[in-house]
Amino acid sequence: MRLTCILLIIGAVVSCKQAPTQNKSTTTLAPVYPAKELNAAFLIVDGVYNSELIAPMDVLHHTKFHVNPFIRVFTVAQHQDTITSFEGLKIIPDYAFTVDSIPAIDILVVPSAAHSMDEDLQNEVLTEFVRKSGKEASYFMSLCDGAFVLANAGLLESYECTTFPGDIQRFKESYPRLVVHEGISFVHDRKAITSAGGAKSYDPALYLVELLYGKKVADGIAQGLVIDWQLNEVKHIAVGR
Amino acid sequence: MRLTCILLIIGAVVSCKQAPTQNKSTTTLAPVYPAKELNAAFLIVDGVYNSELIAPMDVLHHTKFHVNPFIRVFTVAQHQDTITSFEGLKIIPDYAFTVDSIPAIDILVVPSAAHSMDEDLQNEVLTEFVRKSGKEASYFMSLCDGAFVLANAGLLESYECTTFPGDIQRFKESYPRLVVHEGISFVHDRKAITSAGGAKSYDPALYLVELLYGKKVADGIAQGLVIDWQLNEVKHIAVGR
Repeated sequence: MRLTCILLIIGAVVSCKQAPTQNKSTTTLAPVYPAKELNAAFLIVDGVYNSELIAPMDVLHHTKFHVNPFIRVFTVAQHQDTITSFEGLKIIPDYAFTVDSIPAIDILVVPSAAHSMDEDLQNEVLTEFVRKSGKEASYFMSLCDGAFVLANAGLLESYECTTFPGDIQRFKESYPRLVVHEGISFVHDRKAITSAGGAKSYDPALYLVELLYGKKVADGIAQGLVIDWQLNEVKHIAVGR
Repeated sequence: MRLTCILLIIGAVVSCKQAPTQNKSTTTLAPVYPAKELNAAFLIVDGVYNSELIAPMDVLHHTKFHVNPFIRVFTVAQHQDTITSFEGLKIIPDYAFTVDSIPAIDILVVPSAAHSMDEDLQNEVLTEFVRKSGKEASYFMSLCDGAFVLANAGLLESYECTTFPGDIQRFKESYPRLVVHEGISFVHDRKAITSAGGAKSYDPALYLVELLYGKKVADGIAQGLVIDWQLNEVKHIAVGR
């Protein structure tokens, strides 16, 4: 599956361990066109950041107005209790993974949360859910410090990645074996799509849509979200599919 | 309160009825520095669009990490029932305005929803709440088609405004007396801040923060949201404070 020849590095890449050859490419992605509806699960915990949850959710959800089969989105949490986001939004999870039978997850999305770098990493039930569902998924995506949760679950071993700009150093120190990029919006390395987060959390999701369904679908979704989407204007690294 | 001399028009302004003199200005806003905590109420209805709700909520909420007194954010809905957003997120409102005693609203935020242009406009209870709380607030802000809800409540009479790019024509036809701008991210006219919405919904909120608390606070919030915030690079119109 890995196409090492597909190496898109758009814009400035600041530094990385074992940095791959830096290259500019205008290669157009050949869409995958999935034959079936895909399930995208958004992992939510208390303290989840609104933007990192919502931006990719909106992009993936809106596929249903542009392509068929499309991406079905839902939230998953450890328990059935209401989740309170970092900004105070009270959210009822669609599924509690310790109780409910969850649809097979094709795309696991891990937004950052207030404790993505400490308490959440000590949560063994959460970590095991991320490990198992990430391994079984076709893609796992982190926004901002969600990369810590993925790395803690062992999912980023052998994958190039990135995280929130202000936490790059801590990420490198916590996981010294990982190849970590900075100064970019997102990194795609086969199953792993990791990203800087914040308002830039639309980028990795639009990229994934373009990868799966083509530029026309990504452009249509972007237009609805008042985004002038030009993949080659977004700083990112695509190591392979 | 209206300072007609403050006319910032940054970037291209495409067209408007009774278009004001177009001007470029690098005028720096003198922050208001509110002496008390401000309450920002986010109106939510079934079908509310995630991004239009979340982007301004995140910006205003994050003031608490940069300034004191800050902005307190909460959601308000007509009923106490769970709200399901357009993208399927299940949200429990903080207050039901038909039941609860709501804190005095300083900033009323109206995100767009699936029925902002039709059914919601027939809802007299909702309309009356918007009219009353908008009149009493220091500012009312719309994201995307939330402008229809404000206009329907009579709040935009005598204010220049904008809405979602794809619905500009319908907005002009529905409210022919209004001065409607297009091709911009947002319009600020005294109490009214109306905006294009989508992923650009961060802009009007960052602008309001800069207006109230200064550029340093806006910059700090933007940095946390991975936004390179430069007000003079955002297409907007500020008619007056």
